[in-house]
Amino acid sequence: MIDKILKDYNVILASASPRRKEIFSLIGITCEVVVSDVAEPITDEDPALQSMRHARNKHNEVAAGCDENDIVVSADTIVVLDGAILGKPRDTREAISYLQRLSGNTHTVITGICVGTLQNHRCAYESTQVMFSQLCSTEIEHYVATGEPMDKAGAYGIQGFGSQFIRRIEGCYFNVMGFPVRRFYDTLLAMKQEDII
Amino acid sequence: MIDKILKDYNVILASASPRRKEIFSLIGITCEVVVSDVAEPITDEDPALQSMRHARNKHNEVAAGCDENDIVVSADTIVVLDGAILGKPRDTREAISYLQRLSGNTHTVITGICVGTLQNHRCAYESTQVMFSQLCSTEIEHYVATGEPMDKAGAYGIQGFGSQFIRRIEGCYFNVMGFPVRRFYDTLLAMKQEDII
Repeated sequence: MIDKILKDYNVILASASPRRKEIFSLIGITCEVVVSDVAEPITDEDPALQSMRHARNKHNEVAAGCDENDIVVSADTIVVLDGAILGKPRDTREAISYLQRLSGNTHTVITGICVGTLQNHRCAYESTQVMFSQLCSTEIEHYVATGEPMDKAGAYGIQGFGSQFIRRIEGCYFNVMGFPVRRFYDTLLAMKQEDII
Repeated sequence: MIDKILKDYNVILASASPRRKEIFSLIGITCEVVVSDVAEPITDEDPALQSMRHARNKHNEVAAGCDENDIVVSADTIVVLDGAILGKPRDTREAISYLQRLSGNTHTVITGICVGTLQNHRCAYESTQVMFSQLCSTEIEHYVATGEPMDKAGAYGIQGFGSQFIRRIEGCYFNVMGFPVRRFYDTLLAMKQEDII
């Protein structure tokens, strides 16, 4: 299991997301948080490649200051609806507009991760389908007023008030929360197999 | 949203599960916990009907002591693999055997809920498919040693160490955690439509 594989390393989480920190704690991993300030510009590139590139950029910045006993883990979560990427909303108006677009539709959540040292690291990604219920304007207003959408890609959080809007998902739940636990485990197993951790 | 519908009621959660209490807190519902000691015998009855019957029995016992301003909410979660119901493991040996059976297979998690007063209540259920990765005996032993499987139907918890074993789900995540949030919301909306809450 993940805690066994990582027991001889210092784990450094290169992310400011409290949700990722919470997931690490759920699986018994104590980690230090070191936040990178790499920008994550949204481009026309394939979303999966884009999420891995963002994750690798964050990883490289943080790993550059670490030693070989540190395992740096970074992640980048992207919400894709009909080919368009929905980032973190800039203001409540954009949050309302994003939620109107998600309402009654299925979108994709992709998280890219990058794991290892500066020299030896691997990238991977996970993709999950998320089906939203039909939202009325009162629900959207009430939800935006909670403040929950404002710091989240796609303007919703699956693990809070937003849980009420999710009819079903297909794939990894933790990926939608911001960190694909099983994909991370598979990546670590592959790195162990390659003898690089 | 759920908190708006329930704002004039005392919400009573007829369940000892800390995970259900946590879900209520995630969606902003303050509730009182009143635990029923109704037995939940596993029978040959259809699992969905069985989960709703268990939920209704717990509901009725607790609701009998409540007044009309109380909304009692109960739930019962059942894990079904190849037609067999896996309850809470009696000991670590049974936990190991359940995890061996879940390994590499897809099972179904069904949660029945019952909501309302003694006179006016509605039952519903939600069903989610859960795909487990292939587990080796070391992983199973390590997991059982964490103690996490012992108080959970099917001998695993999706929201803790067990998250590492889940390759994907199809349906509601919160249902697997023990309480189907969206189904609960739909049930409340239907009850409001019927004018019984």
